[in-house]
Amino acid sequence: MKTLIVIGHPNIQDSRTQQFFKEAVQTFEDVTIFDVTADLEIEKAQQLMVDHQRIILQFPLYWYSCPACLKDWLDQILSLSGIEETLANKELGLVVSLGVKSSEFQAGGREKFTLSELMRPFEAIANKFNMSYLPIFSLSNLSYLTEIETKQALIKYQQYVSMEKSFSFEISEQWHLEQLLKIQKNHPKFEEKIQMLIEEIEENRDELSTLEHSLKEMKEE
Amino acid sequence: MKTLIVIGHPNIQDSRTQQFFKEAVQTFEDVTIFDVTADLEIEKAQQLMVDHQRIILQFPLYWYSCPACLKDWLDQILSLSGIEETLANKELGLVVSLGVKSSEFQAGGREKFTLSELMRPFEAIANKFNMSYLPIFSLSNLSYLTEIETKQALIKYQQYVSMEKSFSFEISEQWHLEQLLKIQKNHPKFEEKIQMLIEEIEENRDELSTLEHSLKEMKEE
Repeated sequence: MKTLIVIGHPNIQDSRTQQFFKEAVQTFEDVTIFDVTADLEIEKAQQLMVDHQRIILQFPLYWYSCPACLKDWLDQILSLSGIEETLANKELGLVVSLGVKSSEFQAGGREKFTLSELMRPFEAIANKFNMSYLPIFSLSNLSYLTEIETKQALIKYQQYVSMEKSFSFEISEQWHLEQLLKIQKNHPKFEEKIQMLIEEIEENRDELSTLEHSLKEMKEE
Repeated sequence: MKTLIVIGHPNIQDSRTQQFFKEAVQTFEDVTIFDVTADLEIEKAQQLMVDHQRIILQFPLYWYSCPACLKDWLDQILSLSGIEETLANKELGLVVSLGVKSSEFQAGGREKFTLSELMRPFEAIANKFNMSYLPIFSLSNLSYLTEIETKQALIKYQQYVSMEKSFSFEISEQWHLEQLLKIQKNHPKFEEKIQMLIEEIEENRDELSTLEHSLKEMKEE
């Protein structure tokens, strides 16, 4: 599956979060990054969309919506002829970076509304173009995160960009195996270590399926 | 009460709806119209906001939100220093013109979501700045409306812009009386006719209060 990340940020270079996202996927061959402020040929963007199955709009929350530069781009591209055919049956995802803690986005919180509610206009776009709308990926200011949380965010972001939609445990496991094989291929010095990890995952899988089998039998009795 | 109408439309001159709105309030002395595409001095806009109690954002729905030109203006003005003090305790209204029938904006309708849901980002802005959020005024394409509906829309728009918030029957009646007195003053040839209308409204009011009084007595018995 190929993914197009459309970044709408007035100043990508100065954004620590955008750099974090960029580095997270720099070895991902099926991911294309598109900067709406740098590449102004709108027809070229439409052609890119044709070639990708998952389209992700990635932006910082500006006044409870995307920055004007991305809205400008959307106003243009969504009015092109043939755009319905381009977008139909594709996936639309949102990667939203927040200036405040995500727990403020709920009834009773300081921001009062959930991100799902605030992003309704994007959900309506997905609805309009018969696209499949993905759960929103949001990330609070990186300086609020611990080192572990930052690493978890990195993997979750990589999965959001490249993993199949259903997000089941099996798919997640498969995704992790593929990442390990990729690292093994590119970094021979880790070969043994990664082989051990892969074997461990496979043993865990066997154990898990034995447990599931036993549980099923117990239920049937 | 003074009202500032902030229009966010990429091409006001060619919009029949925007011309309709403009003509509706051209004799209203307490109404100021501000075009975000024509007047680019952002500090001047902030000063205008200081002088007005009701601020209305008026725009055509572009992809379930405001056009990029208005988002750009909001991104700028809402980041100015002192803007919290400028906006606190004022009213925020939205006048949204629609390309499709408003009945499509509901669960099960073609657009799936209500306008209240789609406009959550504006409600969140009102929340953020301690503003009082008014019910949305929406208008479908004028060519869908009958002559009577168009006249009704005109009056409702005038009220939205200039009438006190609570929108009760008494306030509406008072508003109509004031409009008639204004016309009477500016058009002496209608003086008698308008005097008759005013008397009729006042008689109706007397009758209504008699009825209310009787009803109260009946309830007490």
